[in-house]
Amino acid sequence: MADPSTCPPLTRSSVEAAHELIKPYVHRTPVLTCSTLNLLASTPRTPAERGELGLPPLLEGEKFASPTVRLYFKCENLQKVGAFKARGAFHAVERLKMSPEWEAGAKKNGVVTHSSGNHAAALALAARTNSIPAHIIMPTISPASKIAATRGYGANIIFSGSTAPERESVCKRVQEETGATLVPPYDHPDIVLGQGTMGLELQEQAPELFPGPGGGNGRKKAHLDAIITPCSGGGMLSGVALSCSSPGSDPPTRGRHTRVFGAEPSFQGADDLCRSLRSGARIREVSSLTMADGLRTPVGDVPWYLIRERGLVAMCLVLERMKLVVEPSAAVPLAVILYNEEFRLLAQTEAGPEGGWDIGVVFSGGNCAVERMVDLFAPATAVTSTR
Amino acid sequence: MADPSTCPPLTRSSVEAAHELIKPYVHRTPVLTCSTLNLLASTPRTPAERGELGLPPLLEGEKFASPTVRLYFKCENLQKVGAFKARGAFHAVERLKMSPEWEAGAKKNGVVTHSSGNHAAALALAARTNSIPAHIIMPTISPASKIAATRGYGANIIFSGSTAPERESVCKRVQEETGATLVPPYDHPDIVLGQGTMGLELQEQAPELFPGPGGGNGRKKAHLDAIITPCSGGGMLSGVALSCSSPGSDPPTRGRHTRVFGAEPSFQGADDLCRSLRSGARIREVSSLTMADGLRTPVGDVPWYLIRERGLVAMCLVLERMKLVVEPSAAVPLAVILYNEEFRLLAQTEAGPEGGWDIGVVFSGGNCAVERMVDLFAPATAVTSTR
Repeated sequence: MADPSTCPPLTRSSVEAAHELIKPYVHRTPVLTCSTLNLLASTPRTPAERGELGLPPLLEGEKFASPTVRLYFKCENLQKVGAFKARGAFHAVERLKMSPEWEAGAKKNGVVTHSSGNHAAALALAARTNSIPAHIIMPTISPASKIAATRGYGANIIFSGSTAPERESVCKRVQEETGATLVPPYDHPDIVLGQGTMGLELQEQAPELFPGPGGGNGRKKAHLDAIITPCSGGGMLSGVALSCSSPGSDPPTRGRHTRVFGAEPSFQGADDLCRSLRSGARIREVSSLTMADGLRTPVGDVPWYLIRERGLVAMCLVLERMKLVVEPSAAVPLAVILYNEEFRLLAQTEAGPEGGWDIGVVFSGGNCAVERMVDLFAPATAVTSTR
Repeated sequence: MADPSTCPPLTRSSVEAAHELIKPYVHRTPVLTCSTLNLLASTPRTPAERGELGLPPLLEGEKFASPTVRLYFKCENLQKVGAFKARGAFHAVERLKMSPEWEAGAKKNGVVTHSSGNHAAALALAARTNSIPAHIIMPTISPASKIAATRGYGANIIFSGSTAPERESVCKRVQEETGATLVPPYDHPDIVLGQGTMGLELQEQAPELFPGPGGGNGRKKAHLDAIITPCSGGGMLSGVALSCSSPGSDPPTRGRHTRVFGAEPSFQGADDLCRSLRSGARIREVSSLTMADGLRTPVGDVPWYLIRERGLVAMCLVLERMKLVVEPSAAVPLAVILYNEEFRLLAQTEAGPEGGWDIGVVFSGGNCAVERMVDLFAPATAVTSTR
């Protein structure tokens, strides 16, 4: 792909331009609300729940956070290939089509990436849609369903070992042999801008569902107060932050109406969804953005104790109450909203004594095979039924 | 509820009026498309699949139907209480509020119904929203999750035996004791008109997703060719048929652009979802509507062999490919589209050699508890993985 220095600037306008490019290829996914989850999120947790979370008892005089929140779920699990990754992949290929590289070889030689997950399927679909080859390096230990999905989109799959050096060396060899253009999973402006298009839609769609002057807080808001997304590589998180930035401001996040949070399983690079739920997670607010420092400057890291059961409870709630399949990592933002006292206190404080916080919550993907769900929920149904 | 003779006429205009009344209370559910399912539905079945369905081998010269269909899924599984029933219940209560009965006792004494399913939860929610009591008669054998959901909406639950006379006698007693107004689950114009509002939305939403002149068949259609809904009581089916009728025509279905089909498990009154899938199902086209003859005159019954595995395959496909939970009965229309050769041949013939059929498919509900899904899919994952 293009040298990042020749890419469009990282601004909201560039995200808007990306949106125009990919609109014909991706779904404008719906934004849904759920009054049961609003109620649950707006109810203080209990000492028993705190105990279950492994947190120390409250100090004398300390109270559970009692935020009033309204949630607007952006359903990228209903996106093509079942994840937001379609946006970045289609944008990367559209940008490639506009570049000199296209006629100089990319059109004939196609694209290549290494991924065991949604980016693999997304790039395979974008390549097939444009009738170019896609070479995907996947670790041999990838789940069979993900391999099948990627192959289903017509990609040429090359297996590698599971460590980063192993994957990268295979990827380099395939690049040399085929002349294909590398489309990295997140660390490129074209990917970031593509993923950010989801933030534009969410900012448009959520206010249509805001309570009117009668139903809510006596005034009709124009903007979401916050957006919370899952985050691993940071491509979506930083793209969404850009989509919330004010045009022409420097840094681009100054003057934003909407604060952007990333909920990140602390087990970095976990491709095993269950394992990532078993581990902890922390939340981050994106306060500024540059490419140079790895896409984002996290400020105010808050410790976050997420136990497997809480993540599964969030996933179960979405399945039972919203009738939606989300993959485990996509349920992490909801788990934060429901069970992270630091986040809940922040929401309460920022909203003030009345009004409440309107939060956009990104369901990033829904790729969880049925047999996997059966494995996850066979024990979890015992958990939820004893709630 | 009101004597049917005093209700609005069964016309599209009355459905539109119902829509205005219930809009503040129900979700405008999204309409989704899935290119994988379009492709699968537009691919001829195979002799092996025919054998699995228990159908006799094709005759000499006979061919599998090869329709071109594009599907537009109306996601009433994402409706309040997880099913379209919210529409009829809210409409019934709104109409009650407009009637003399409201001040004469209904407001104080509330509403009553007998239902083991989605109508119970829907009426409970509509009652709570309007701060009136709801008395729901449920058979003692109702699934625990449905009882919990109905109780969760604040209803007073009275248990009864599971036969119709037992339920009705308890219902009659509760009516007499409480003075509550009976809101039947389907056999009333206010219910039919409420359910029909979903058809109005589908007819508006689907054409926005039609392929353009470049993508489809060279022209941009204005209307769906057909809508297929599940059908048990017939309230939704007849309401949707009304929503497709031409204003002022007599009978109201004359001059329709869109044909309406009901896919009906032949095990009538089955409240056990699994059992209804194990049994057969037949399809019906609604060609005329009167209240007198039980809401509809089925014409051209077509034999339909639905085996449990095909129903589960449809439900599995929706879960894995569309990331949506649908209850087993809600998957029946998709099973018809994928596996019923009579329907597929009809779609092929009606569409002619080019163009294809644009079909609205109603996902009527998503209320399937997680533990139930685990039970259903633990064996089904074996089925789908050997497809």
